[in-house]
Amino acid sequence: MGKAKKNILFIMYDQLRWDYLSCAGHPHLDTPNFDWLASQGVRFNQAFAQSAVCGASRMSTYTGRYVSSHGAAWNGFPLKVGELTIGDHLRKLGMDAVLLGKTHMRADVEGMERLGVDPDSVIGVRVAECGFDPYIRDEGMEVVGPDGRYSDIRSPYNDYLWSIGYESLNPWHDHANSAVDDSLNVMSGFAMKNSALPANIIEKDSETPWLTSEMINWLEKRKPDDPPWCVHLSFIKPHWPYIAPKPYNSMYNGQDIIPPVATEEERRNSHPVYRQYQDGVIAEGWSKEEVRERAIPAYMGLIKQCDDQLGRLLDYLRKSDRLQNTMIILTSDHGDNLGDHHLGEKDMMHDSSIRVPLIVYDPSPDADKTRGLVCDALVEGIDLAATFVEFHGGEIALKNLDHILEGRSLMPWLKGQKPSWREFAVSEYDYSMTPYRAQLGVSVKDARWTVLVDHRWKFTHFEGGFRPMLFDRINDPEETIDLAEGSTPEIIDALELMYRRLASFRARVCQRTTLSSDEIISKTGASRRRGVVLGMYDEGEAPELLDAYGKAVKKNYTQ
Amino acid sequence: MGKAKKNILFIMYDQLRWDYLSCAGHPHLDTPNFDWLASQGVRFNQAFAQSAVCGASRMSTYTGRYVSSHGAAWNGFPLKVGELTIGDHLRKLGMDAVLLGKTHMRADVEGMERLGVDPDSVIGVRVAECGFDPYIRDEGMEVVGPDGRYSDIRSPYNDYLWSIGYESLNPWHDHANSAVDDSLNVMSGFAMKNSALPANIIEKDSETPWLTSEMINWLEKRKPDDPPWCVHLSFIKPHWPYIAPKPYNSMYNGQDIIPPVATEEERRNSHPVYRQYQDGVIAEGWSKEEVRERAIPAYMGLIKQCDDQLGRLLDYLRKSDRLQNTMIILTSDHGDNLGDHHLGEKDMMHDSSIRVPLIVYDPSPDADKTRGLVCDALVEGIDLAATFVEFHGGEIALKNLDHILEGRSLMPWLKGQKPSWREFAVSEYDYSMTPYRAQLGVSVKDARWTVLVDHRWKFTHFEGGFRPMLFDRINDPEETIDLAEGSTPEIIDALELMYRRLASFRARVCQRTTLSSDEIISKTGASRRRGVVLGMYDEGEAPELLDAYGKAVKKNYTQ
Repeated sequence: MGKAKKNILFIMYDQLRWDYLSCAGHPHLDTPNFDWLASQGVRFNQAFAQSAVCGASRMSTYTGRYVSSHGAAWNGFPLKVGELTIGDHLRKLGMDAVLLGKTHMRADVEGMERLGVDPDSVIGVRVAECGFDPYIRDEGMEVVGPDGRYSDIRSPYNDYLWSIGYESLNPWHDHANSAVDDSLNVMSGFAMKNSALPANIIEKDSETPWLTSEMINWLEKRKPDDPPWCVHLSFIKPHWPYIAPKPYNSMYNGQDIIPPVATEEERRNSHPVYRQYQDGVIAEGWSKEEVRERAIPAYMGLIKQCDDQLGRLLDYLRKSDRLQNTMIILTSDHGDNLGDHHLGEKDMMHDSSIRVPLIVYDPSPDADKTRGLVCDALVEGIDLAATFVEFHGGEIALKNLDHILEGRSLMPWLKGQKPSWREFAVSEYDYSMTPYRAQLGVSVKDARWTVLVDHRWKFTHFEGGFRPMLFDRINDPEETIDLAEGSTPEIIDALELMYRRLASFRARVCQRTTLSSDEIISKTGASRRRGVVLGMYDEGEAPELLDAYGKAVKKNYTQ
Repeated sequence: MGKAKKNILFIMYDQLRWDYLSCAGHPHLDTPNFDWLASQGVRFNQAFAQSAVCGASRMSTYTGRYVSSHGAAWNGFPLKVGELTIGDHLRKLGMDAVLLGKTHMRADVEGMERLGVDPDSVIGVRVAECGFDPYIRDEGMEVVGPDGRYSDIRSPYNDYLWSIGYESLNPWHDHANSAVDDSLNVMSGFAMKNSALPANIIEKDSETPWLTSEMINWLEKRKPDDPPWCVHLSFIKPHWPYIAPKPYNSMYNGQDIIPPVATEEERRNSHPVYRQYQDGVIAEGWSKEEVRERAIPAYMGLIKQCDDQLGRLLDYLRKSDRLQNTMIILTSDHGDNLGDHHLGEKDMMHDSSIRVPLIVYDPSPDADKTRGLVCDALVEGIDLAATFVEFHGGEIALKNLDHILEGRSLMPWLKGQKPSWREFAVSEYDYSMTPYRAQLGVSVKDARWTVLVDHRWKFTHFEGGFRPMLFDRINDPEETIDLAEGSTPEIIDALELMYRRLASFRARVCQRTTLSSDEIISKTGASRRRGVVLGMYDEGEAPELLDAYGKAVKKNYTQ
């Protein structure tokens, strides 16, 4: 393979907290393969998801645009048909863009129908799959309730399990995500009482090894003359249900978990929106010591399994001589509160929720000087699309997309440069679909907040007339003290600065996606050269017009 | 025709100033047909265009969305393929949506190609024509210069002129928009020296009568069983070139024009962006008395011709028994400075530029009590789309589009109700394509301003670090005194209020266009009923889950 043929392996885990890796400082979890890749690349230690919820965060990552720019602000909000994605941009640069795994994309079926896009056509599939060609699309959530399935995407993983003999209507749930008791009764992984039990599945058949195998299968089929590729390898784990197959279910126990960051202070006088979450059923569950003691070890086991499978994949890449021409990204769509801050899931805006791991390995010699570097720049999920475009297409390709991509390329950091950089990261959250909206009596359009993070402060503005929240990231790195009601000059200045930044964020130009800035510059003044001459009294002021128009006609109609 | 079959005749003129009608107080111009419709409907006396430039203003009117929501901020910026238009909404409600005339739409050719939309298919044509089915699309600007044609839309008007014997490469220019001298030399209407001369065309062949005739032809072909219709009848006039056919060229002269509103004060210490426009070639042309004395009478003549043709069309509607079931709208996309404020064209943000005429005649008995009413509510171009949807589909249809349409229905005003209403109107302007951007050294993305208007103030915020502008509409209705640098408490309060409003405008949710608020409310909490049960310790907490999932499997894989 020629030097030019550089590929991108874009690996995303789901709900992997930024600090649940040994390279990020977890005291009990050992993730040597993540760590190895970090030693070969750059670990971005201040990476933030554009939203704490899967769908919104992913749509930002795939489009390279903020949530309020693309509008798909919650799981199941369709990404409108006019939004462009990584796949569109890379394909235009001659790359294949392929999906293995989860996207949480909801297709804009109505928009496709309006435009006559056949959902089964190549274009239709891409529009419905975030611009990727799906080799495997599996949402990893074959969840079913009384009203039916959570996802309308067919589960290839269930097909796989059935094909190898797992017998159940829904082996995703009944085998991969549940244990059994002695009478073969299903003990659902959704009930965290069962989290310490082994999932009723042979480990190699569970979700992470299965998708890793599919990745290797895909690579095996690749021919030397095929175009360079960007594969989005998107694992569901360590996302709930919190239950792991043997031996991962018993690798960690209650002694390996970190005590919750959950102070009394955080419950006292807490922000009204925060309080709703604190009082919700999810938080209530996570407030129980027995939940944490069972679910967190399972979560850690699932991460350990991810790490082992990463090792397997890296081995394959090494042996098949691909490490030297493949950029590898490891990241997540958001974190998991795991009981911290009196919260479960990825609710609210603490680091446990919106901060994500991000490791980027660039095989180029240019990046040799940064191998093993930990970078503290404020980076965002939307930066990946820009990075991929520059990695493959160079600076000009990136500049040509300045009207669409809102993220910034990480390439300068990878090369050891010190680019001037954004002063704050942004994460947005829309809670209109949650019961908390109604409980708070907030309108659908006001049920949202915007988080701005810099190296010192984390500021959250809430719509709907609520006060903001403010954490001091230096003096209160655990984010337990909300300073927004403080009145010291420092706090007042911080709030003022953040409101100014919020205004500038919202003032951004983000919908002029059909014309780049360079095109505008090149077309400036063009209308005069096409005959639009204004403010002219005498024809002599625009001789070019006299040349372009008829000089004489055949008849006078006004006599 | 049944009672339900109500049609919409949506007439737009181009560059028609709000105050160039006798019903709006013009002292010398007599427009009895506009006035008659105003006496039968409501004249909105505080109507503002969403932008002062054709393309941006029209894209807002056709989408019902602000310029910063749809992104097509200047002439020739393609409207992205995912944006929905009046045509899409009305067609879904069972109406035909048809175009006769100009839209200034630039199709998103790249987006269409990406989605495999054939430009020649019915869908492709609609996407390229603002959602309308074009019966006649004519841009009314068959302008040509050394670099070629201004518009890439074929001119059916030229086809028409050729078919009836006008001989010239471009009869639009050489006949309809130019005069001739005794030797048959073309005297271009672009040179305002020629504006008092008669256009070299028989009056009935000129643009306004031609399109009016086509409108009548279209109506003639309509069959009783055809669906109800919304026709966008979109005239190019009184847009430049300022030249009118006999007898309109000589109906008015220099004595009929209003002295320019252009004070010394306005040139002193003028805002840096304003100053660029004041110093530009267009303004320079319009500063000449001989330009105003020739071009304004021609402009008035063109309006008088519009009025006569409106009378002809109203007569036809009356005779063909259509007045009682057709809503009729008369409006414009923006105004024309005509030398006021040391400006020409539709530059900047004075009323001469962004305020538009708007007359709405609703034939429904509900509207009887408001016939002849002048309404001072702050209305916007984007309100028309919402009005049409409610007029045809009712309140529910309108509510179902609350996530797409940003305008408000005018129906309550037409029924004589007093709805709670917006406190300010917004108009946006992007000058990145003008030479002023480079002269000011402003970046492409910062070359824009936003105008907020209420009953008292007109405030303009400029990006790029410039100070704002502020007019007192009550005490300075001619808008000649920029108060933004004043320091009275009243001014300080006004600026503060306007900045607060600007922030709230920018904070609006405008990109969640794939899901309505009602859909969100109805889906809230649905994921639990589809099996997503979080924070649960014991299965007993979610009995519905136990029912939905398998209760027992056939094998224990973990032994």
